[in-house]
Amino acid sequence: MFIIQPLGPPVQENLVELLLMLDAARGASAARVTAVIPHYAYARSDKKAMPRVSIGGRLVADLLVTAGANRVLTMTLHSPQVHGFFSIPVDHLHALREFADHFSRVDLTDAVVVSPDLGNAKNAAALAKLLQLPVAAGAKERHSDEEVTISSIIGDVEGRNVIVLDDEIARGTTILELLARLRERGAGSVRIACTHGLFCDGALKRIAAHPEVQEIICTNTLPVADGEAGPELQVISIAPALAEAIRRIHEGESVSALFGVT
Amino acid sequence: MFIIQPLGPPVQENLVELLLMLDAARGASAARVTAVIPHYAYARSDKKAMPRVSIGGRLVADLLVTAGANRVLTMTLHSPQVHGFFSIPVDHLHALREFADHFSRVDLTDAVVVSPDLGNAKNAAALAKLLQLPVAAGAKERHSDEEVTISSIIGDVEGRNVIVLDDEIARGTTILELLARLRERGAGSVRIACTHGLFCDGALKRIAAHPEVQEIICTNTLPVADGEAGPELQVISIAPALAEAIRRIHEGESVSALFGVT
Amino acid sequence: MFIIQPLGPPVQENLVELLLMLDAARGASAARVTAVIPHYAYARSDKKAMPRVSIGGRLVADLLVTAGANRVLTMTLHSPQVHGFFSIPVDHLHALREFADHFSRVDLTDAVVVSPDLGNAKNAAALAKLLQLPVAAGAKERHSDEEVTISSIIGDVEGRNVIVLDDEIARGTTILELLARLRERGAGSVRIACTHGLFCDGALKRIAAHPEVQEIICTNTLPVADGEAGPELQVISIAPALAEAIRRIHEGESVSALFGVT
Amino acid sequence: MFIIQPLGPPVQENLVELLLMLDAARGASAARVTAVIPHYAYARSDKKAMPRVSIGGRLVADLLVTAGANRVLTMTLHSPQVHGFFSIPVDHLHALREFADHFSRVDLTDAVVVSPDLGNAKNAAALAKLLQLPVAAGAKERHSDEEVTISSIIGDVEGRNVIVLDDEIARGTTILELLARLRERGAGSVRIACTHGLFCDGALKRIAAHPEVQEIICTNTLPVADGEAGPELQVISIAPALAEAIRRIHEGESVSALFGVT
Amino acid sequence: MFIIQPLGPPVQENLVELLLMLDAARGASAARVTAVIPHYAYARSDKKAMPRVSIGGRLVADLLVTAGANRVLTMTLHSPQVHGFFSIPVDHLHALREFADHFSRVDLTDAVVVSPDLGNAKNAAALAKLLQLPVAAGAKERHSDEEVTISSIIGDVEGRNVIVLDDEIARGTTILELLARLRERGAGSVRIACTHGLFCDGALKRIAAHPEVQEIICTNTLPVADGEAGPELQVISIAPALAEAIRRIHEGESVSALFGVT
Amino acid sequence: MFIIQPLGPPVQENLVELLLMLDAARGASAARVTAVIPHYAYARSDKKAMPRVSIGGRLVADLLVTAGANRVLTMTLHSPQVHGFFSIPVDHLHALREFADHFSRVDLTDAVVVSPDLGNAKNAAALAKLLQLPVAAGAKERHSDEEVTISSIIGDVEGRNVIVLDDEIARGTTILELLARLRERGAGSVRIACTHGLFCDGALKRIAAHPEVQEIICTNTLPVADGEAGPELQVISIAPALAEAIRRIHEGESVSALFGVT
Repeated sequence: MFIIQPLGPPVQENLVELLLMLDAARGASAARVTAVIPHYAYARSDKKAMPRVSIGGRLVADLLVTAGANRVLTMTLHSPQVHGFFSIPVDHLHALREFADHFSRVDLTDAVVVSPDLGNAKNAAALAKLLQLPVAAGAKERHSDEEVTISSIIGDVEGRNVIVLDDEIARGTTILELLARLRERGAGSVRIACTHGLFCDGALKRIAAHPEVQEIICTNTLPVADGEAGPELQVISIAPALAEAIRRIHEGESVSALFGVT
Repeated sequence: MFIIQPLGPPVQENLVELLLMLDAARGASAARVTAVIPHYAYARSDKKAMPRVSIGGRLVADLLVTAGANRVLTMTLHSPQVHGFFSIPVDHLHALREFADHFSRVDLTDAVVVSPDLGNAKNAAALAKLLQLPVAAGAKERHSDEEVTISSIIGDVEGRNVIVLDDEIARGTTILELLARLRERGAGSVRIACTHGLFCDGALKRIAAHPEVQEIICTNTLPVADGEAGPELQVISIAPALAEAIRRIHEGESVSALFGVT
Repeated sequence: MFIIQPLGPPVQENLVELLLMLDAARGASAARVTAVIPHYAYARSDKKAMPRVSIGGRLVADLLVTAGANRVLTMTLHSPQVHGFFSIPVDHLHALREFADHFSRVDLTDAVVVSPDLGNAKNAAALAKLLQLPVAAGAKERHSDEEVTISSIIGDVEGRNVIVLDDEIARGTTILELLARLRERGAGSVRIACTHGLFCDGALKRIAAHPEVQEIICTNTLPVADGEAGPELQVISIAPALAEAIRRIHEGESVSALFGVT
Repeated sequence: MFIIQPLGPPVQENLVELLLMLDAARGASAARVTAVIPHYAYARSDKKAMPRVSIGGRLVADLLVTAGANRVLTMTLHSPQVHGFFSIPVDHLHALREFADHFSRVDLTDAVVVSPDLGNAKNAAALAKLLQLPVAAGAKERHSDEEVTISSIIGDVEGRNVIVLDDEIARGTTILELLARLRERGAGSVRIACTHGLFCDGALKRIAAHPEVQEIICTNTLPVADGEAGPELQVISIAPALAEAIRRIHEGESVSALFGVT
Repeated sequence: MFIIQPLGPPVQENLVELLLMLDAARGASAARVTAVIPHYAYARSDKKAMPRVSIGGRLVADLLVTAGANRVLTMTLHSPQVHGFFSIPVDHLHALREFADHFSRVDLTDAVVVSPDLGNAKNAAALAKLLQLPVAAGAKERHSDEEVTISSIIGDVEGRNVIVLDDEIARGTTILELLARLRERGAGSVRIACTHGLFCDGALKRIAAHPEVQEIICTNTLPVADGEAGPELQVISIAPALAEAIRRIHEGESVSALFGVT
Repeated sequence: MFIIQPLGPPVQENLVELLLMLDAARGASAARVTAVIPHYAYARSDKKAMPRVSIGGRLVADLLVTAGANRVLTMTLHSPQVHGFFSIPVDHLHALREFADHFSRVDLTDAVVVSPDLGNAKNAAALAKLLQLPVAAGAKERHSDEEVTISSIIGDVEGRNVIVLDDEIARGTTILELLARLRERGAGSVRIACTHGLFCDGALKRIAAHPEVQEIICTNTLPVADGEAGPELQVISIAPALAEAIRRIHEGESVSALFGVT
């Protein structure tokens, strides 16, 4: 049995509903229950940033097991260490093939893939490899939930058309900071891609307002929040990828053969 | 450490917040964490009314343990069997002393305590005993969440002033049905008491609209929902009872000595 | 693997034997072990009737899991909440089809199905529906293990032929009390059916001594105790029902489709 | 809290009673519950003598933990490996001091301590050391529950007064076989001591019928079975030893300092 | 999935490697993981020989389960009770058929099978039965890891050609002590067989130096340590036995049917 | 009870020894056992860098719990997410105060604190704040265990005296790469500090050979490997910090009050 529940807002309610469904499936003697959580929202709570807080990403992993999950299928965790919070097998997908497929249809002359965060540039490097492009990265420091600085960009962006790849966009603070740096460094057009489109507080509109931004792309791991969607946003479906992973799990085939880090 | 969290609306959010607080307390090396849940909302989900549903009362009991609860302090569970859903010690309080104290100050001439539900008349009988009054009970059948019939009243109510005791009032369907039966049977004035005042869909106003209803009493195990409160409602505090139970738990004294079923 | 063990007297010895058999099956690498417990004797211990007692129904559920049970198949639990004591899937059968089949062969003119206990009248109502008969119920209060009063009967029994349905008969106190009330109310003949025939202390003989009692029926979830059996008792086999449930579990088919509450 | 329950006949019933008491203690918020089991009857089931049997000593250890035991206090386990069946701390006492105290009051001229079983001679050697006597042992082979042969005695017993030490005597097969060997080897008087006096099937009388047997001693880890007791048996109390161990556990002192293997 | 890891030196490193492999297999969604541990080195730590030591055989059994083992396949455990340390199914093989096959090819005139340890003579007796030979046993007492005495030999060895069977040979102390006793008792030639050839501190050479020793045989449950091997040693492969057991586990056939104690 | 075991080489052996000691402590009824692991070596294995590997940091956290650890005290985990691998409370210390104390005694004119890794610059920033110095960071990318590039340095280092802070130094690849970049950027003298001094393959000597390196400092969370130590290395003791944390844990005081991230 596969239960698909993206943990978008209202996150807490969706989580408890998932727990109740897992318990119902176990109680009804399902042979194996896989929780399919395209966006594992609690992954952001992955460390004790200050004393006496919960590491929610670990707690929720334990709650899922208590409720009856035997396996988890998810996409682009906020940090790769979150994988280790689970005591059950986790299949950790990414959307790099979908993004590569999308960008292979646009003019890639003088293009470069840019990660906003040097410490998390692995996915951007993998996308760049798939597109046979160079890669660059922002020197990002996060001061608080709402304050981020990118003091520099490592790599060559001057006069280049930029493809930005991030794991998620919520308030858009990081992307807006990156756009400022790119402009200072003389970059050309900018295309922005992220796996999880959390868009809130008007992020989409504020990003799209920049004239150099040619497109904004996210996947459908989450429904776009009411009032946030707009014509500027293209949503790529990861349903075929999830479906193929589900088929492979169901038939006992290798998932990592398809979705392993490239 | 004692974490007090009544599971009122929004129930799911309040539950997840409680789970996160329990986990934070455990991670901060609390010696023992007691979850104080004056109203254990999930107690209503105590059986499989149809196939392939979750018994939420059991699942949530397990989630609390997973999150770090070592002991639970609660009041007037929907059915006494819910106690057995927990794998950790549960102190199960009631508000009978508070209700007895309240009613001992009103004129009890020709009074009778009435339970709407014969199968759950234990508390009403205990209150009657404290007040040295007779007891009666409705023959209640629940057909669905919204449909209840009380076909008869067992015991003598004609010409008597009635004190109704129920565990909780939500939509008020049961109480309205009981008021109809009491009127048919020639009862006098009616005072209504319940532990958990969930009042929704205008229940309080619809009950208070009956001229024979002299007062409606609940405890503060839950905040009264916005838009439901009114001058007809008296709220009795169970804070002293909780405080005494907490003191006894903290100092290793017997809780049941004080709150055991009378 | 299916291990069939009815928890009849000597209950404790039969329980420990079941635990040892479960452990032996697990140690011998059985793929899945289902404990088939037609009468789950410990279900009566389902709440803390006074402080400092064990809720045996929960403890034994945990012991079965510790010993290696992966699933439980049982019949007519004393209260439906006991289902929630188990952390493994439970298939909860009933014998309503067998009883309906039996009574469809007798003259049902002016008949009514009577539950001794209003709070537990669901099964009687379901049987009545299968037989297209009306239903009535006793207003039962249990004062102790040995003392029960039925103060009234809700529904019409005067001049009617009564079919009594109870979950179990042990000392017969409840049935004898009900027979007295039925006589006062002018009922006609009485047929008595129960799932679990625990008959002890001469219960069967004392019930059969009433001239209005035309038959007493139980199922073979338990062997009838030595010295208690008599020609007054008809035993209906639930073996075909268990066998069908076992076949469905073994072949991964739905059990609730057949045995769901009607 | 300390719950004292010797697992004598009826063993299964006594076990389940102990499990229920442990659960009641946990449910009543005991800070720590120690199961005091002077005779751990299930220790004899310590290996898989044939395929598809339960290792009962391990299963019961797990059941005790499931029911709420935090610690176990026991005496003279059938084999020392049984200690490793428990996942909780076990204090494993012996009665060597009590036996030494007893025998220090009799004439020990030309005495020797004899273990019926060479493979289990550690306790006999320790007793011999306390009494400053030599030690000997029987070459015992167990063919089945009821058939034992002792083909030889290792060590010097000719003309010596023998003190036999065994862990338990049930049917007495081993002791009767040993008495035959001792007579053949020309031993003098025989005194027999065991920790657990299970005596059944007339064992005590059959042993006492041998003229060379001067006394038979056991401790009160178990009540002597009805119909088995007789004037030939002296029962030594291990209550003071248990009491001292309980005091040390309660006050956090070392138990092994007193009861470690000498 | 089957992971084969003999726990030879360096034992701790090999154990941790096994734990990491088990965890990797579980994380990669293996349906079932069987740890194949031909020599379970920790079995020697099977009791608390003194206070405040770990029973390593139990601890490691628990660690294997924590790391993801679902089943264990092992050979000739140091004591049969170690089986009870595992909470998962254990298939416990022996090499008796391989030894019987080997010795059936030598001249067995006047031969006798000798166990160095009377308390552990079951395997020697089983081998003797397969070869239709008599059996004898040494009266062994272990004083410390390095000091062993065999005070006597039970059974007839004078003038007989001896086949010694032991579970393992490490420093060879026991075998050297037994050789001395056999010479005193006038035994003829000696052939020595053990399942686990741990040979250390020059054991093989010291044993082979005795002229009556005609051959020394072990199985390949462990690689022979560097610098210990020599032409005196014959190694019998138990690979076919393991392979057959693995095939039976994989295909759900009975393992005990083939390897049950004869 | 506190068991102090730094997981230095041979890591696997030290881990298993720690597990055995934890188990011994639990078996000896210790009230609470805290594993003090100044260097948690397995923290580097914190994600699935490729399919079908173990996340060792999580596995070992579970093994510690299985063996009996109730709490863990450690220092400077490789990534802060590793905290979430533990299901028991973790007190996570750092050595920033010790380093600040050390550097406050040297000439800090024109000094800057440099983190080799921008993504992990939090500790360097905290140290800079304690010393009232600016901070800079290398743009580090790790290609494999042995290959690291630092493409740039974010922040001003020209003509400045550098204090490098890293969590651990093993082969020194990162530091050597950083020294090259610092030289290119015209930095002055360099002082190097790390918490865990793993020094191997001659790292210390190769780093000290650079003339601009004025001192190399580590703490004593690990003994310096034989053959690696040299006069170039100063070792600062974190024993007082551990001792204070242990005292606070033992007396139930707050650890985070002292060691919380500044």
